Amino acid sequence: MAEKNVYFFGGGEAEGTVDMRELLGGKGANLADMSSAGVPVPAGFTISTRACAAYYENNKQHPEALKKEVAEHLARLEKLMGKKLGDGTDPLLVSVRSGAAASMPGMMDTVLNLGMNDKAVEGLAKVSGNERFAWDAYRRFLQMFGDVVKGCDHEKFEEALNSVKAAKGVEEDLDLDTEDLKKVVEKYKAVYRDHVGTDFPQDPVEQLWGSINAVFNSWHNPRAEKYRKLNNIKGLIGTAVNVQSMVYGNLGDTSGTGVCFTRDASTGENYFYGEYLMNAQGEDVVAGIRTPQPLQTLADANPDIYKQLDDIRSKLEKHYRDMQDLEFTIQQGTLYILQTRNGKRTGLAAIKIAVDMVAEGLITKEEAVKRVTPEQLDQVFHPMIDPAARKSARVIAKGLNASPGAAAGEIVFTADEAEDWVKNKGKKVLLVRRETSPEDIGGMHVAEGILTSTGGMTSHAAVVARGMGKPSIVGCKALQIDHAKKTLTIEGKVYQEGDFFTMDGTAGEVFEGPLPLIKPELKGELDEFLAWADEIRATANRPGLTDQVFKIRTNADTPGDAAVARNYGAQGIGLCRTEHMFFEEDKIAIFREMIVAKDVESRKKALAKLMPLQKKDFVGILEAMAGLPVTIRLLDPPLHEFVPHEAAQIEQLAKNTGVSVDELKRKIESLHELNPMLGHRGCRLGITYPEVYDMQVEAIMSAAVEVAKKGMEVEPEIMIPLVGTVKELSILKANAEKVIARVFEEAGATAPYKIGTMIEIPRAALTADAIAQEAEFFSFGTNDLTQMAFGYSRDDVGTFLPQYVEDEILEDDPFAVLDQTGVGQLVEIGVERGRKARPDLKVGICGEHGGEPSSVEFCYRTGLNYVSCSPYRVPIARLAAAHAVLKNR
Amino acid sequence: MAEKNVYFFGGGEAEGTVDMRELLGGKGANLADMSSAGVPVPAGFTISTRACAAYYENNKQHPEALKKEVAEHLARLEKLMGKKLGDGTDPLLVSVRSGAAASMPGMMDTVLNLGMNDKAVEGLAKVSGNERFAWDAYRRFLQMFGDVVKGCDHEKFEEALNSVKAAKGVEEDLDLDTEDLKKVVEKYKAVYRDHVGTDFPQDPVEQLWGSINAVFNSWHNPRAEKYRKLNNIKGLIGTAVNVQSMVYGNLGDTSGTGVCFTRDASTGENYFYGEYLMNAQGEDVVAGIRTPQPLQTLADANPDIYKQLDDIRSKLEKHYRDMQDLEFTIQQGTLYILQTRNGKRTGLAAIKIAVDMVAEGLITKEEAVKRVTPEQLDQVFHPMIDPAARKSARVIAKGLNASPGAAAGEIVFTADEAEDWVKNKGKKVLLVRRETSPEDIGGMHVAEGILTSTGGMTSHAAVVARGMGKPSIVGCKALQIDHAKKTLTIEGKVYQEGDFFTMDGTAGEVFEGPLPLIKPELKGELDEFLAWADEIRATANRPGLTDQVFKIRTNADTPGDAAVARNYGAQGIGLCRTEHMFFEEDKIAIFREMIVAKDVESRKKALAKLMPLQKKDFVGILEAMAGLPVTIRLLDPPLHEFVPHEAAQIEQLAKNTGVSVDELKRKIESLHELNPMLGHRGCRLGITYPEVYDMQVEAIMSAAVEVAKKGMEVEPEIMIPLVGTVKELSILKANAEKVIARVFEEAGATAPYKIGTMIEIPRAALTADAIAQEAEFFSFGTNDLTQMAFGYSRDDVGTFLPQYVEDEILEDDPFAVLDQTGVGQLVEIGVERGRKARPDLKVGICGEHGGEPSSVEFCYRTGLNYVSCSPYRVPIARLAAAHAVLKNR
Repeated sequence: MAEKNVYFFGGGEAEGTVDMRELLGGKGANLADMSSAGVPVPAGFTISTRACAAYYENNKQHPEALKKEVAEHLARLEKLMGKKLGDGTDPLLVSVRSGAAASMPGMMDTVLNLGMNDKAVEGLAKVSGNERFAWDAYRRFLQMFGDVVKGCDHEKFEEALNSVKAAKGVEEDLDLDTEDLKKVVEKYKAVYRDHVGTDFPQDPVEQLWGSINAVFNSWHNPRAEKYRKLNNIKGLIGTAVNVQSMVYGNLGDTSGTGVCFTRDASTGENYFYGEYLMNAQGEDVVAGIRTPQPLQTLADANPDIYKQLDDIRSKLEKHYRDMQDLEFTIQQGTLYILQTRNGKRTGLAAIKIAVDMVAEGLITKEEAVKRVTPEQLDQVFHPMIDPAARKSARVIAKGLNASPGAAAGEIVFTADEAEDWVKNKGKKVLLVRRETSPEDIGGMHVAEGILTSTGGMTSHAAVVARGMGKPSIVGCKALQIDHAKKTLTIEGKVYQEGDFFTMDGTAGEVFEGPLPLIKPELKGELDEFLAWADEIRATANRPGLTDQVFKIRTNADTPGDAAVARNYGAQGIGLCRTEHMFFEEDKIAIFREMIVAKDVESRKKALAKLMPLQKKDFVGILEAMAGLPVTIRLLDPPLHEFVPHEAAQIEQLAKNTGVSVDELKRKIESLHELNPMLGHRGCRLGITYPEVYDMQVEAIMSAAVEVAKKGMEVEPEIMIPLVGTVKELSILKANAEKVIARVFEEAGATAPYKIGTMIEIPRAALTADAIAQEAEFFSFGTNDLTQMAFGYSRDDVGTFLPQYVEDEILEDDPFAVLDQTGVGQLVEIGVERGRKARPDLKVGICGEHGGEPSSVEFCYRTGLNYVSCSPYRVPIARLAAAHAVLKNR
Repeated sequence: MAEKNVYFFGGGEAEGTVDMRELLGGKGANLADMSSAGVPVPAGFTISTRACAAYYENNKQHPEALKKEVAEHLARLEKLMGKKLGDGTDPLLVSVRSGAAASMPGMMDTVLNLGMNDKAVEGLAKVSGNERFAWDAYRRFLQMFGDVVKGCDHEKFEEALNSVKAAKGVEEDLDLDTEDLKKVVEKYKAVYRDHVGTDFPQDPVEQLWGSINAVFNSWHNPRAEKYRKLNNIKGLIGTAVNVQSMVYGNLGDTSGTGVCFTRDASTGENYFYGEYLMNAQGEDVVAGIRTPQPLQTLADANPDIYKQLDDIRSKLEKHYRDMQDLEFTIQQGTLYILQTRNGKRTGLAAIKIAVDMVAEGLITKEEAVKRVTPEQLDQVFHPMIDPAARKSARVIAKGLNASPGAAAGEIVFTADEAEDWVKNKGKKVLLVRRETSPEDIGGMHVAEGILTSTGGMTSHAAVVARGMGKPSIVGCKALQIDHAKKTLTIEGKVYQEGDFFTMDGTAGEVFEGPLPLIKPELKGELDEFLAWADEIRATANRPGLTDQVFKIRTNADTPGDAAVARNYGAQGIGLCRTEHMFFEEDKIAIFREMIVAKDVESRKKALAKLMPLQKKDFVGILEAMAGLPVTIRLLDPPLHEFVPHEAAQIEQLAKNTGVSVDELKRKIESLHELNPMLGHRGCRLGITYPEVYDMQVEAIMSAAVEVAKKGMEVEPEIMIPLVGTVKELSILKANAEKVIARVFEEAGATAPYKIGTMIEIPRAALTADAIAQEAEFFSFGTNDLTQMAFGYSRDDVGTFLPQYVEDEILEDDPFAVLDQTGVGQLVEIGVERGRKARPDLKVGICGEHGGEPSSVEFCYRTGLNYVSCSPYRVPIARLAAAHAVLKNR
């Protein structure tokens, strides 16, 4: 028996199955699948990819057997549809489409309305009662067949059409009536004849084979070849061809068309939602010329069709086990499903549907977790602009989407004003600045959102906003801020302080005026869903690792942040930045005294005043995280970030310290650095001013002892930043241990602790074996590691990075998505060499990448013990981690 | 026969040989060697390390055989010296010293003046005619023997001595006369008795064995053990003991002492140079209380001794094949050589001596090359402060020795003033600034030397000064510059503009006032010497490398620099920085127009004006380097380095460009970056402003075609800086090739060229395999690579790096000496991965390390094809390369 190469589908059955993608292509296998599942797809047949391969092997000839098979299937199709190709009364029209095993959208050829000829056009006119529609379909087919199958110059058809329009003095196709279109058909036939040398074939079977061959030929067109090369699609033998009957929703009042969702795509409610139009084609629904009816009205208007549709809804959800987005057409009272696919949905809906479907027994918990993307999950934590209002709003500026969520408020240009307006005037404000600095923390805290004109994904504004869970857009280059005049200019338009803006941090878009915001609510389902993600995460299996568990920690600097994060599921603090504490009002003055101290003694005096204050902070944080590890980083930023620059503040400091204003100014000037990112900061300060770290270690460990005395479990981890050579670490570790011994002795009690380091300098990663001799843990500071591995300043990348991403020089902003190719190598080297020297080395990541899904997966694969991210990203990381576990099983 | 454990030396013979270090220790083997060579060293004998090991194995007991051997050798010594231990007429006194196979200076014990007792002191008094000297020697021996051999408390002896001084009412030892010293001896004896419980032993043999054992015991004292551990000295069985007769230069008018060099240590002339004093001890010569005589006067005063000494001089040079620095003592008419060693010498002398000794047949060329250090070679290229004047001058400030040589001049604080003072007032100036920037080039060019208060070894001032071969000291923190008042304050002392300073860039030292400078002259010998180095370099043998040869190129930006470097032996240009050209007066205005251009068209217009000017520069450079490769780096620094910041200049620019002053200021402000080192520069500019690189490529290649047309060979290598991802390079390479094709077409001629990249971003090294797919050559930019691998800004390291080096957190300043541990890994990775992708990849280094000897050796070992350094360091690199070849044979 000859091999079967043509597969029928339609009428509730199919010869092919869903697993025959290789043979029938993706589209053919899906059509077969839908048809078998009882979905009334327009009937047709699929010619196999094997036939395509044979066509090429056989010098572009088909064997007789194939011709016979196609003829048999065509006959079966005509019988099922009760129509005949080329028939003058009720003609069958078909589409001829490509369909390979891998999706190659738009790369190969398609022919629609096939079967149209001088007789069929009359038949279609009759059956549709719409002569113009029939002639328009004819002229479209002539053009498509001539162009796609015979290679006629597209331009010639355009010229012909334009000449008719010109003769009539109209400009739009729609202004042509039936008689005009008949003229166009004549002219198109002439174009065809001129180009091909023969008349346009009236025989539908000749049309069909021409189209089938054209689709096969398009498998090797340069566009398709390039697409396969670019997308690394290999090992395919050819494309299948799908010949499918065309159906029309505009064949009178018993015809119609619509789209629907098996559940509400906005809320996830199990509610059949959709819209339809009678006597219309699909494009009419989309074009919005007529207003579609809500699907529910169909139940009254045509209960039979509605029931069929509702049955299909259930059938499809059971079959595909997911919410479906389907397109249907009713052709003269018969319902056809043109397409069904998994429906797009909001984050809210995604979670609700996933959780509901588990309850309904449709899917497993694992599938539910798999199905929700981290981006969808993220949505439910933030207010968003009401989609209805957003439609009509104009984006006035775009920037980097540094921290998600939407916010609306009056714009102000300084942190002080933000505080004043909010506290004293009861306003809601958006803080708009060129860049932010630690001095702006207060204003950032009260603002609804933060908008800067410079900076990248790890700039100060971005990092702090994410930490606060506040919307932020950075590197918004269109903003020209004039601080003196208190104005903001965007493309020539000047805005004043107090003007209302709305910003969408998720999209990085800025709007004029206040837009209404909505906040998704989804408490019960969310907790259930995240618990499932945690269950999956707990099944991590990473052979060769002492500790299999993959933990999610948080970056938190205050007891409040710690509590929020713990509530979101954080299993400890991966980064507590001690310097933020120094900006609080009670501490900054003392800290400045310390900085400008003339000698070690006065410096120690200032530090002694700071110690109890800092200790109090640590007590709060350790209590909030009782029973969980807390990694505390010693002072990291350069000292000039803390000194005042305004005359009044300098005078105040002079008064406090007894140092002259002139001398203070000189001191402040001397702290200036050309490249502060590469300057005197981190452990370099610890080396040159050991008394600062000594104070911090004392504060941490006396806090730990105090909390432990209350019966709570403490796990402080002292982290020394910016280590580049093992000697820095060994010196600072020895200093710390001396202080700790003293604290324990004075307290008459001890507490557990670890001393480790951040790996954020490339040289540290390269010499991790030596460093691990001294460090009990590593935490990869991938922000700085990215800065140094790329040589990019996170504060200055705005000038070229957006273009780099747009031109695909970089796949992603490396400050948002960890660059696995380059920076990732340093992480891998660091982990491998570190663990070689110390097999039980605890390794985590505390850069901003800790909350980014693809980076979380990288960290999992690379054997990190945990990721740490800002509190509001903890749930995202929990989900991303579950995905990582599933993907790497 | 029992094994021999005691070895005699003296009287022109020796039982041991120079190769018996393991058995006799370093000192013992050397004494044997000298004695055999006919050098009249004070006679003595060496007890072997094997005896030391046996002593420990045998519970600190000696076998009878050893005692017998020592007795025999002692008898032989007494006979040879014609003196007897403890003799009341003419006593023999000996020293007992340690001496292991590895040098452990000062770690073990020594006893001097052994043999002294109540009788011998009388004998020494008689024979020296100096009673006081004899009693002083006795009391010293008592103290040393008590302390070293018997462990008496040092303090007790001090107390005894002080009590005698107090009784007499004097403060200095020298104020004690013979009678006083006799009292001291009595008191010392009492101290000894109190501590040891027995009387001080009068028997010299008992003294001798006590001292031998003390030396053996000191092998395992904690200090010595720690020293061996720290210096990784392993596998030694013990120390030898050297018993050597003491000789005295102060035993009357026929005694004396002196030091001499077998050749002039300053000039290298083959002239017997030295100084001596009759009736004196070594310390008298050093102390400077009496003025020593020139050695030549000895020829008249004592022709016999002088002749002996002169004979020894020849003998020693033949024996040691190097210039010797020797100490001698004449004891009552007999000449003894106390020590001979290779003499320290100036760079000038080192080369002259090495070349002369080859001519004399004493050493081979290879030995000559090996013997001169790169630091010595460096000296001969720079003026130095006259050593005589320097002695009495006070160093007022110290900084990093950024560029060698000395300079004197009046201080000025701006580049403009430097130019004005030199050109219009005919002054010599030193330019003193906080830091320099490219705008200061003119002033730097005319200054004698450059002094900055900030910056590190690769700061702008340092790099440019080295390029110009001009002395420079950077990071000189003591300087407080007040630009407004035009004053400079150093430790409270205020200096005015116009005050005279002298600076020594080699030492990094600043002096007040003008000091006389001298410039070594050594043309013939130098060329000969460097030719030998090149011969050795040509024998490079690096298996697995396509091209064995290790070349020396230069970093040069102008035809003048290129010519200087070629004259110094450069084999091409490894780095031509095109941006320096833009600072020339005719170009900076046009370049600024380009920067502030409103759109691409006006930018292109400015660039079109620049093109012929830049082409002219390239023609000059390619001609100067005809036949040799020239690597030209496209624009690298950020644009803000080129824009004016002073009002007048901004106004001028506004006039030139028709752009308003306000808009210009905004534009200039927008170019400001927080961390310019990590900002918008290098190929990032090439991507965002492709027309700039297009212009440069056009200038390079049309210059190449023009020079080639004149019949000269050209090898331009177009280098794209700061590449971090392969896509940057592939885009810019494609752009360049388009321009080149156009240049060739328009010229109707071609020229060879290569396109490659700098590897200076860590990520580039890590992804070198991908980058080498596009690059025909790599040049490691180890300045930036060091900045980014360490996270150090070269401009800001002054605040902590000096302390890091001092505290040995870092072995060296990594901007001066390539950090092989960390940065070196990136170089190795880059070379290995690059060559894997492209086996014939040409790889060089153009960072400042290219002229630093240990870095040159690293580059040789790592398989680099060349190093490139500033013109004045080319000879240093040639020598260092020869050393590398020799070391790695």
